[in-house]
Order: sequence, then structure tokens, then C-alpha cells
Amino acid sequence: MPAHRVIILGGGFGGLYAARALRRAPVHVTLIDRRNFHLFQPLLYQVATGSLSPGEICAPLRSILWRQANTQVLLGEAADIDPHARTIQLRDGGVFPYDSLIVATGSESFYFGNDQWCQWAPSLKSVEEATAIRHKILFAFEAAERLTDSELRRQWMTFVIIGGGTTGVELAGALGEIAAFTLKHEFRSIDPHTARILILDGSNHVLPTFPEDLGRHTVEALARLGVEVRTGVKVVNVDGDGVTLENEHQEMERLATKTVLWAGGVHGGGFGRVLAERTGITRDRGGHIPVEPDLTIPGFPEIFVVGDLATRPGPDGKPLPGVAQVAMQGGAFAARVIAARANGQTAHIGPFRYADRGDIAVIGRAAAVARIFGVHLHGLIAWLVWLFIHLMYLVQFQSRVLVFIQWGFQYLTFSRGARLITGASITEAPEVSASVHSAKR
Amino acid sequence: MPAHRVIILGGGFGGLYAARALRRAPVHVTLIDRRNFHLFQPLLYQVATGSLSPGEICAPLRSILWRQANTQVLLGEAADIDPHARTIQLRDGGVFPYDSLIVATGSESFYFGNDQWCQWAPSLKSVEEATAIRHKILFAFEAAERLTDSELRRQWMTFVIIGGGTTGVELAGALGEIAAFTLKHEFRSIDPHTARILILDGSNHVLPTFPEDLGRHTVEALARLGVEVRTGVKVVNVDGDGVTLENEHQEMERLATKTVLWAGGVHGGGFGRVLAERTGITRDRGGHIPVEPDLTIPGFPEIFVVGDLATRPGPDGKPLPGVAQVAMQGGAFAARVIAARANGQTAHIGPFRYADRGDIAVIGRAAAVARIFGVHLHGLIAWLVWLFIHLMYLVQFQSRVLVFIQWGFQYLTFSRGARLITGASITEAPEVSASVHSAKR
Repeated sequence: MPAHRVIILGGGFGGLYAARALRRAPVHVTLIDRRNFHLFQPLLYQVATGSLSPGEICAPLRSILWRQANTQVLLGEAADIDPHARTIQLRDGGVFPYDSLIVATGSESFYFGNDQWCQWAPSLKSVEEATAIRHKILFAFEAAERLTDSELRRQWMTFVIIGGGTTGVELAGALGEIAAFTLKHEFRSIDPHTARILILDGSNHVLPTFPEDLGRHTVEALARLGVEVRTGVKVVNVDGDGVTLENEHQEMERLATKTVLWAGGVHGGGFGRVLAERTGITRDRGGHIPVEPDLTIPGFPEIFVVGDLATRPGPDGKPLPGVAQVAMQGGAFAARVIAARANGQTAHIGPFRYADRGDIAVIGRAAAVARIFGVHLHGLIAWLVWLFIHLMYLVQFQSRVLVFIQWGFQYLTFSRGARLITGASITEAPEVSASVHSAKR
Repeated sequence: MPAHRVIILGGGFGGLYAARALRRAPVHVTLIDRRNFHLFQPLLYQVATGSLSPGEICAPLRSILWRQANTQVLLGEAADIDPHARTIQLRDGGVFPYDSLIVATGSESFYFGNDQWCQWAPSLKSVEEATAIRHKILFAFEAAERLTDSELRRQWMTFVIIGGGTTGVELAGALGEIAAFTLKHEFRSIDPHTARILILDGSNHVLPTFPEDLGRHTVEALARLGVEVRTGVKVVNVDGDGVTLENEHQEMERLATKTVLWAGGVHGGGFGRVLAERTGITRDRGGHIPVEPDLTIPGFPEIFVVGDLATRPGPDGKPLPGVAQVAMQGGAFAARVIAARANGQTAHIGPFRYADRGDIAVIGRAAAVARIFGVHLHGLIAWLVWLFIHLMYLVQFQSRVLVFIQWGFQYLTFSRGARLITGASITEAPEVSASVHSAKR
């Protein structure tokens, strides 16, 4: 009898933990990802802000899984599925049959129907976007250094982050540190410390998934870094010169800025749409696929959806959050069900129960907020917990050591090692008016 | 009296060492570079082969020079010069006057008049090109893993490096190690060790600037890594499916390959052309600017050209090589002349004398060739010298430590931490035939 064939789509937290949990199962695993590496997404904001290099938070999927003899890694992008014939078709034409399927393709940034904003306000989902954000942030200070017109300079030195969730708070905190410490002595015409950094959010407080007292601590810690938090505002437009918003008093307001970063929200990714169509499932408003208690799609007990793409009510009735923990536990659960079936066990496993260990967001040096097993922490202690958790979870031993050394060095010196402006548009002139500096000396 | 204004174009070895040598001179220094970072070019091949991350071999120019109060760093690209009015015009319109100018804009890859080859055969001059090469190399193995057609697979697993100088040898050696060790256990359908790696060179031996015995050691060390060296061959064409060459017997020959890397030669960069036109200087065939014994342009004693862009006969009558040492010493020499003039000293300084400390090329783990103060070394001892020199010269303390740890880890484990396939074209399908793997299991 040929071995049970498992296809896993996506090598993020959900897919990778599913693959690892299948290592001793009598199955053939094929893990397919568009990327050849696993990205440690929670530290991506540190790439965007020049603390870490992409290579330090990524690990090749092959090198993570090479010891697992029952597993093959393939580079490819799933384009279509035939759930009745049980095949996956890749973008380049390859067709792969499966007996069990785990879909862990994650989410995409969502601009609330205003996709044209994305050209002005990159989001933080991929390594390329992170280096593009790094480019934007560092370039803004460079452009300001060359300008003499104070209004234009102000515009370049204003940074707007849309979205006050974990990503928005972490980006803003890191930006605050860059302006206040990292670049402190490095410019001659501008004082980086005078940069204006704003978080805009439509809800009533930042970190909506955190308890309210931690939200207050967050606003205080951000204020110490010079970050203004404006909640209850609605972004109406984003363009190359700024952001238009409906403010707290229902008035239209314009923020002139050259740097807008999007941390506004996510949406179930492109493959989710195809999957929903082919299986006849209705996605929720956020593009998520509602799954059964055992994380399968109704009517397709061999198709599991885990991680950001799936939605499932938690114990409090609210949907489980789109965090790494949920994806990892979901992936491991789906693997357990598949392994049991492949072993011929008929006992029912499940339902999937998410063990919520808490939530954590870092604001800056020795500043974080955390809810761990129901305990609320903030300041240095929360930051130490964050440090410990993130180091432990970094997949590769090597990365773990390097990141630790980078951080240790940066903690002591305030410097940031990976401050490169790279990418195709690097030599493009900023909109700096002619002869800006010519008469300076 | 206003201070003497020095403009330095380029933050490579020449420009950076000039700026540092001017730190105590009574001058205002403006260092202008298209990039916000200094690139440690000799280690760029390690980025291209996934050993190091770009951030680990680059250091922000501002963070290198921030303590130097007389120096300002600006991001910008020189577009034109008026040597009579003594001004530099940047691409975005800024005009900067100077009293002394140091041009250290370096060289560009040169495809011997066949610029269309560059789309198929990236060279190794910038961080972007290095990550593009990394993409190409890693992607080739991924594509081969998905193919069943043995001829196509062979094509993807053939790597051709054009040029047998230091860059070509170092790229080929690293590629040999990737195929033989790094990827050894990570694929299921292909054996990476069977990859074919070739160096093509038109001259009679590799490393033409090295003594002949070291060239022989190099060929032997490369052979141990499975790299074939073919000298005396002439590349006639490069396209998306391979390389056409006129071989050792004056016959036309075709090498089917998907991965061609260019290490074929360099040419004085774009700004050199403008500079030559405006000053009425004739460049040599390689696009270099011939300079006076004090590194200035004939008729313009305030314009210095240092590094790869300049050409100057060495003690043996041959032009000084385009290596970091020549650029660093040239930059420091120009700075010394300028400082003396700014201090009102009238004594003549010069001529510039290059102190040749030797040359070194690394082939792989514990394998290198070196000529140090006239002594020829090869094998482990040469490699240790290489290691020591490169660690010492890495500009930033932080990078030095990190690179050392990365190397130590890789030496012990054969792994490579920065094996990311990134860039805009990442999701593009390789030319893999349809349903390659569908029937595999």
C-alpha cells in the first residue's frame, strides 16, 4: 500500500509545525511554499527598522527539515485545487495529488478596499516589504538633511503609522528609538530627535487585543519615545504627500508626510478565495475560512485549514486571533489527526482547543507589555519575557545566537547594524528641490 | 576666512579612507555617495553564496563618520562637474562648490561591449546584484528538484562563471562548497553534489595577477571542490539557455546552463566619462582616468582621482591593480596633499607610491592562495592569513564580531545562514515543464 500523501501549503508557523509534527508518522509529506525559507514574522519589524538583517530572522525550510526523511520541500505557489480529485495545481503547471491537505497560506495586508494606498504605505508582511520600509525610513532622514525649506523638511521628518495593533506599536517604538538615539549624532543639518511619529487608529485604544491597563502603559511608553498616539480617527485618503483623516471631532484633517507605514489589517490570502470557491464555502468578511472543530472544511474531512487563513470561535466566542501561537497549535493539531488516520486509528481526536499562553508587544529598550497566563506585565520585566520567548522560538540555533549578539550590541550602544538603503529605486532622486545645499557653506 | 571645502565622491575604500585621513585637517569635508553605506566589497561573494547577510558586510557611512565633526555625509549621485567653476552637480539638481575634489566613484562591470548579456549573467558589484546571484544559484537547485527531464535538470545544475580572476575563483569555490556540503542532504530528487561548475577564462591561467605556482594550486583546490577550470576559451554569446564559446581548439561549443555569473571585467564608471569630457582628458581603453604622480588630473591640481577609476603605472610599469589596497592608499595620499595645502604648507608631497603588501584569494574552507610581501602561501596557512586580514579590515566592530561568529558556525557545520531567495521576481515560475512531479509517488 503506498504511503498516505500529505501536502502542506505554506511554510509559516502553521505549515512548519504541521510538518514537524508529522516526522514520525507513516506518511509522505510535501511542503510547498513560494519561498525557500521560513520567516520569523514577529521580528520582521526589526528588519524594517534596521536592527536585524533578513538572513537573521529567516531559516531555509530545507535546512530545518532535511533530517525528516519522509518530507520533501518544494518551491512553488499553489494556484488551484480540485477537492474532489484531491489534487493541487501549482502556478507553473505542476499537479500534485494528496490524501490529506493542510492549507496554511496565511493572510495578506488589507487596505480596506483602497489598494492604491499600498504604493504610498507599504505594509509589513514580507522580507521585501520590510527592506522597502527600511529604505523609506532611512531615506526620509537623508532627504531632510539635504533640504533647507523648513516645511518640506518637516514633511520628510513626519512618520505616520496606520494601525495601533502589535505591528503598529512595535514599528512606532522602534522608529522613536531610531530618531531619539540611533541617529542622534549622525546628521549635521537636522536633529533626528525632532522627527514627528504618529500612530493613527480607528478604535478607542491601541493594542485592542490587550487588557486596557496595558494599553495605557503602552501609550505612556510610546510618549516617552516621542510617539503620538491618536485613536478614534479614520483614515480617508493616503497619497504621496500625506494622509487625510477624519479626526476625533469628525473634522477633516491633513497630515503632510512622506512616510506612511501600513499596519492597518490583514485579510485571508489569495489561495483562500480559490479554496472557498472550489469547496463551496463562504468566507467571512475578513476573507477567513470558517473551519469545523477539527479544523477541517465542512464536507471535506481531509482538508485542514490552519493559521491566519482559518477562523474558529475561541472559548470566549470571539474568533481566535491571527497570531503565531494559534497557527503553530493548529498545525500540530491537524498533523496529529492525520497521523492517527494514517495509523488506522479510528478514535476521534479533537476538538482543537487553543491554549492561550498570552500576548506580548515590545515598545523599545526595556519597555514592553505582556499578558502571560492571565498576569499583566509591563516595563523591563515584560521586555525580558519577550526577549526570552523570542529567542527560544527562533527556529535555528545559529540565528538565535546571532540575534542575541546583535541585540546585546545594540542594547549597549544604541547602534543598528543593518541600516541599508537598498532596492531597485535606490538611486531615484527624492523630491528634493534643486540646489538645496548649494549655498550652505 | 572660510574653511577649505573638500568634496569626496564615493564612500568606497578610496573615499572613506580619504575622509578619515582628513579628520584633523582644517577643512570641511562633504562625502557624497549614492548609497548610505560603505560596502566591504571583498566579502560580497559571500553574500552571493548565502554565507553572510548584506547587513553584515555593510556599515552606514554616517555611523562610521559621525564623530568626525568636520565631515558631512550626503546621499546623492554626482551627475556633472564644472571643473572651472569648481562645482559638482547632483542628479537631483543640488550644486556643491569645492576647493578640492576627490573622485572615488569606482568601476562598473564591463561586458566587453555586449551589455545585453547582463540580463543573463549578473555581475558582483552591488548588494542588489549579490542577492540576485544568490537568488539565481539557490533557485537553480529548487528548479532541478522539481524536474524529471534529465537534460533540463542537467541544464539547471550547470553553473558557468565567466572570468577567472579573484571574484570568479571565489564565487566558484563557494559554489563548489554549496553543492558538495551545504545542500548535501537537503534534496530528495537531485544530488546537489552532481552539479557542474565551470570557470571560463580567455587567458592562459586563472588569477592572472598572481604568481603562476599559486594559479596551479588554485586549479587543484578548485578541482577538489568539483570545479572545472577552462582557460584559453572565448565567450561568444550568452543567453537564457546557455553560453556559446570558442574553445581551446578554436571550435564553437555550446554549454547548456541556466546560471551564468559574470566576473569578466570592470570598466571605469559613468562619472569618469563626464569627468574626462569636462576636463579634456582621454581615458584609457578600460575607461580609467590617467593621473599625475600626485593623483591629480593634468591641469587641475585640485582634482584627485583615486581607486578603480584612476590608472597610474606601478613600479613594474604595469598599471596599479584595481584592488582595495590601491584605493585606500590613494585616498589617504590625496587627503594628505589636501591637508598640507589647507595648512598652508608649500612643500611638495609625493609622488604617490603604492606599498604592495600582496594579494590573496580564498577558494574554500581552509583553502586559499596568497602572496604576502613576496612570500607565496597556499592551503590552510593562506586561508588563516585571509581570515585575519579580512576580519581586521571590516570597518565596524560589530560586523567584525558577527562575521566571525557566522564563519565559525559555518566552518563547524557546513551550513549557510543567509540562503534566502528574495527579490521582485521570486514568485515567477521557473521554466519547469508542466506536471513534473505529479506522478512521482
